[in-house]
Amino acid sequence: MRIREATAGDWARIWPFLRDIVAAGDTYTWDPDVTEERARDMWMQTPPGRTVVAVDGDTVLGTAKMGPNHLGPASHISSASFMVHPAHGGRGVGRALGNHVLDRAREDGYRAMQFNAVVSTNTRAVGLWRSLGFEILGTLPEGFRHPTEGFVGLHIMYRKL
Amino acid sequence: MRIREATAGDWARIWPFLRDIVAAGDTYTWDPDVTEERARDMWMQTPPGRTVVAVDGDTVLGTAKMGPNHLGPASHISSASFMVHPAHGGRGVGRALGNHVLDRAREDGYRAMQFNAVVSTNTRAVGLWRSLGFEILGTLPEGFRHPTEGFVGLHIMYRKL
Repeated sequence: MRIREATAGDWARIWPFLRDIVAAGDTYTWDPDVTEERARDMWMQTPPGRTVVAVDGDTVLGTAKMGPNHLGPASHISSASFMVHPAHGGRGVGRALGNHVLDRAREDGYRAMQFNAVVSTNTRAVGLWRSLGFEILGTLPEGFRHPTEGFVGLHIMYRKL
Repeated sequence: MRIREATAGDWARIWPFLRDIVAAGDTYTWDPDVTEERARDMWMQTPPGRTVVAVDGDTVLGTAKMGPNHLGPASHISSASFMVHPAHGGRGVGRALGNHVLDRAREDGYRAMQFNAVVSTNTRAVGLWRSLGFEILGTLPEGFRHPTEGFVGLHIMYRKL
C-alpha cells in the first residue's frame, strides 16, 4: 500500500465507493443523493487543502482529504475526512491514511486537528481515532439521523499535533 | 428596532461595520483581510440560508445569518452568526437578533442550533448565548489566535430548539 497525492484521474476510481458510502447515510453528513459533480468539488481539494489516495498498484483502497477547519485567526486548526473502499476494509487502510494525514498536517504547520462530525454509532471510526490520539471534545445530542438507529450523537473529536 | 430579511441593497450598510469587526481579528474566524466580494458571498445567504438585518429607520444596527450547519443526515442542525454595529451596541441588538434567529430556525424545522467557533475571550457573546439557552458543548484548546491574548479557547455552543 502506498499513499500519494490524488490526481484528477483518480476520481473515477474514488467516486464508485465514495458514492456508496455517502448513499448508505450512516456515517457521513453529506446529502446521500449527492451528484458526482458536487461530490468531486467537495472531495478533490485545492491548496491549502490536500486529497490523497491509498493505492495498491492501480487499485484505490481508500482516500482522505484535509485542510483548514477554520479561517483567519483559527486557521491553525485542520480537519480531515476519510473513505475506505468497503472491499478493502480490515487491512489498515484507514489507520495508514490517518497517520499520513496527521504527518502532513504537522508539516503544513497546523497545531491541531478537529473532526466536526463523527457519528457515534460508527464505533470503528471512533475507536480508530481514539487509538490515533484523538479525544471526544463534545457530542452533539441527536446530531445525526441514522437510517436504522434513529437520532444518534455526533462527536466532535480533537487532537494536538 | 425592526428585524427583517436582508436585501441586496442592505449590503452597503452592512459591509463597513462587518469589515471592521472582521479586521479587528478578535471575535471572528474569518480572514481579517477578507475582500468585500468574498465577505458578501459568505454573509448574504441564499436558501435554505437566511440573512436578516436589525434596522431603525434607514440605519442598520446589526445583522445575522443562519442556515444548516451540516448536510444530509445532520441537516436538522442549524448554525448562525451575528454582527452588531459597534456604534449601536448595548441596546439589545444582539439579543433581539438571537431570539429572532432561534424563532426562524424553529419555524424552518431545525431541531437544534450549534455555534462552531465562539471565542472564549468574547465574554459578552458567551454570556448572551448562555442567557438564550446555549451551553458550551466543548472547547477547542488554543483554537483561536487572539491579537493581544495569544492562543485562547474556541467554544462550540449548542441548544435544542
